[in-house]
Amino acid sequence: MSLYTKEVTIEWGDCDEAGIVFYPNYFYWFDCTFQGLLRSRGLSQRDIRHKLKGVTPLVDVGAQFRSPGAYDDVITIEAGEIEWAERRFRVPYTVKCGDRLVATGHELRAWAQYTEDGGIKGASVPDEFKAYFK
Amino acid sequence: MSLYTKEVTIEWGDCDEAGIVFYPNYFYWFDCTFQGLLRSRGLSQRDIRHKLKGVTPLVDVGAQFRSPGAYDDVITIEAGEIEWAERRFRVPYTVKCGDRLVATGHELRAWAQYTEDGGIKGASVPDEFKAYFK
Amino acid sequence: MSLYTKEVTIEWGDCDEAGIVFYPNYFYWFDCTFQGLLRSRGLSQRDIRHKLKGVTPLVDVGAQFRSPGAYDDVITIEAGEIEWAERRFRVPYTVKCGDRLVATGHELRAWAQYTEDGGIKGASVPDEFKAYFK
Amino acid sequence: MSLYTKEVTIEWGDCDEAGIVFYPNYFYWFDCTFQGLLRSRGLSQRDIRHKLKGVTPLVDVGAQFRSPGAYDDVITIEAGEIEWAERRFRVPYTVKCGDRLVATGHELRAWAQYTEDGGIKGASVPDEFKAYFK
Repeated sequence: MSLYTKEVTIEWGDCDEAGIVFYPNYFYWFDCTFQGLLRSRGLSQRDIRHKLKGVTPLVDVGAQFRSPGAYDDVITIEAGEIEWAERRFRVPYTVKCGDRLVATGHELRAWAQYTEDGGIKGASVPDEFKAYFK
Repeated sequence: MSLYTKEVTIEWGDCDEAGIVFYPNYFYWFDCTFQGLLRSRGLSQRDIRHKLKGVTPLVDVGAQFRSPGAYDDVITIEAGEIEWAERRFRVPYTVKCGDRLVATGHELRAWAQYTEDGGIKGASVPDEFKAYFK
Repeated sequence: MSLYTKEVTIEWGDCDEAGIVFYPNYFYWFDCTFQGLLRSRGLSQRDIRHKLKGVTPLVDVGAQFRSPGAYDDVITIEAGEIEWAERRFRVPYTVKCGDRLVATGHELRAWAQYTEDGGIKGASVPDEFKAYFK
Repeated sequence: MSLYTKEVTIEWGDCDEAGIVFYPNYFYWFDCTFQGLLRSRGLSQRDIRHKLKGVTPLVDVGAQFRSPGAYDDVITIEAGEIEWAERRFRVPYTVKCGDRLVATGHELRAWAQYTEDGGIKGASVPDEFKAYFK
């Protein structure tokens, strides 16, 4: 199930000399899609910080490249159903160009709470946060 | 007069520690807007190369920053009327967030033709290229 | 065993609003480290193309973040021993700030050969390529 | 006169499909060179904020491209003598590949002071800041 889909036109500056996407850009788009997902639910990185007193640092990320994304291609990045663990959550991504699969990937994020001295400390993902994605 | 307008949501990864756009990104958006303008007229960088046997290397670029662009702002980048010279053309850009002026800027591009040995050489901007923007 | 180490000073433009590295940059540095490794062995992407008639498209990449990289930190990105498979090879990376572990990661690349019609096709990693890393 | 010089190897990910530097990267390198200049004088963006209670927002930037920077080129970015105005300062940059001139450019920065309500307000460049560059 798709929670949020972002559309991107691959631009000149996103491609390398081989004329295909320089791959770190896929992670930029994963992050943008996560931000877009938050926005679509009425949240933002800042809301997470101010309302929920939390942050969502990245723990593990990955991507698998199935077919090239090239200049002028219009691609979609889809955030799938979030997998919740006690202190972490995993967002899966699927990148397509029309029906063609371009890449898959994921971001595994931890939940961390601000401490009184301004540091952060791992904590259980609050139900209040999870509720935004139901 | 506006030739083309691109809308961009400022993303987490576009901002620096001060929470405002890291300024080289404005030039990325200028270039994307130029590419979008080409596309809107049925051209692309590749068409310029293949149909018109030319390239449009940058000669001079600049930007003036008027007010900050920040995370989650939706901005528009507008390409204004192209100013044509014999062998060059200048595209002016205006960046706004709603009615607020964020930045202005320009790209001055030369016209260069492929030579028989695969190099490039400055040349007059062809009328065929100018016609796309009328 | 380390094959090649790249040193990077984390710059203002590499960090996000939280003052830590925007994570796609780690993959940019992985790729730069791979390019540096090639250079250190007398190869380059272009040599691979021209001398060996091959390319090394990415198949799978990943990273695990262990501690934050922040503005002004000097980090090292170390490419470890390459793991060779028949048609693929995996380069492991370790990112440190002094003795502190910042991140680990990998790039899994395929070997592909240019075909007569200008396309590319998966092929066995040539011994000639492997020999550069002995 | 040169105040500070940064050396950069142009990487695969810095180049576009034409095999030359995607131009916004020059501004990233200008900014890195400014940060390096600060560091070389015992300052950093954070020191400016904490010690001098100021920030140096960009007002105007520009670049002129003289010859291409390409993959594997080693370039130098030199920050020249700062031009001081009452409330602003201009840093000129020169980019070379060996003796070949690649680009010139500048960053014009304002001096702004933090106000009591957390905002910023233009102010005269403090002598204490200027003294770092003598």
